[in-house]
Amino acid sequence: MNFCSNCGQPVTRRTPPGDDRFRFFCESCGVVHYQNPKLVVGCIPEMEDQILLCRRAIEPCYGMWTLPAGYLENGETVAAGAKRETLEEAQARVEILAPYALYNICHVDQIYLMFRARLIDKRFQAGSESLEVKLFSEYDIPWQEIAFPVITATLFFNETICELNFANLMHHSITIKK
Amino acid sequence: MNFCSNCGQPVTRRTPPGDDRFRFFCESCGVVHYQNPKLVVGCIPEMEDQILLCRRAIEPCYGMWTLPAGYLENGETVAAGAKRETLEEAQARVEILAPYALYNICHVDQIYLMFRARLIDKRFQAGSESLEVKLFSEYDIPWQEIAFPVITATLFFNETICELNFANLMHHSITIKK
Repeated sequence: MNFCSNCGQPVTRRTPPGDDRFRFFCESCGVVHYQNPKLVVGCIPEMEDQILLCRRAIEPCYGMWTLPAGYLENGETVAAGAKRETLEEAQARVEILAPYALYNICHVDQIYLMFRARLIDKRFQAGSESLEVKLFSEYDIPWQEIAFPVITATLFFNETICELNFANLMHHSITIKK
Repeated sequence: MNFCSNCGQPVTRRTPPGDDRFRFFCESCGVVHYQNPKLVVGCIPEMEDQILLCRRAIEPCYGMWTLPAGYLENGETVAAGAKRETLEEAQARVEILAPYALYNICHVDQIYLMFRARLIDKRFQAGSESLEVKLFSEYDIPWQEIAFPVITATLFFNETICELNFANLMHHSITIKK
């Protein structure tokens, strides 16, 4: 951030009065520009004893395998975001089953919320951000070619893959309307 | 957003190539300014059969009661954010017990993640954003003076208050390091 998005003047970095953190601050119009972590939502699409992975057509990690996930958009619920990302990246329709895991990825200011999901049918294909989309059984997961540590962590603990019982991972998700 | 935070020129709103949503876009330097929901983290501080509420010293809802909660900061885990907000607003130290509920508040682009927490001791007092901080028993909760619907929802389902069993609300929170 170099310029104030409100008035267009250069910003400085300093701790505003009453605050205890460095913020981008506009000396000209007085606006403090807060920056906060982004929420990434995605899912583990399951079908029978297989899960769906996407091979990335974009950097970073071009050519590596990942689960469908991406930034939550304004106006969207977390479950809707996970479904949308799955449709965009794998052209697949899923039913969201339950929240599965939440990861703090502090060094890149991201919070990942991954859901368990059920593929509604076998119609899927690469979206514009994927080279390839494929169902994998436990023993076929390409562990050496997984895009990000958070995806490895999610897959490794996936009950479909590891036979662990995470039935108690369910929690309460409510949409508050205006 | 009126000006590009990268180059200081005026921004327009349009759908960038390959996208399907209106974004703030800089015709001058080509930067797309994405805007995403913010994550609010907070907790229900419990002590014996009481919970701690804060009376707001700031707008909106000046004078109304709320649970300690606020925007997650960059570089922070969700649990650390909830603890920090409790320290700031109620000068209280809590042990985070478990995630309790996640709320989509789409009309203001906020996702609330509330934890159950245990007050470590009875040392608490109003922080700079609170007029007053007080322990309430179930029958003393000032339901008509709760600041936001999301706080009413959280309190109403609180097992301490309602005797509901939400033991299955626990989920998996991992911090991924660089």
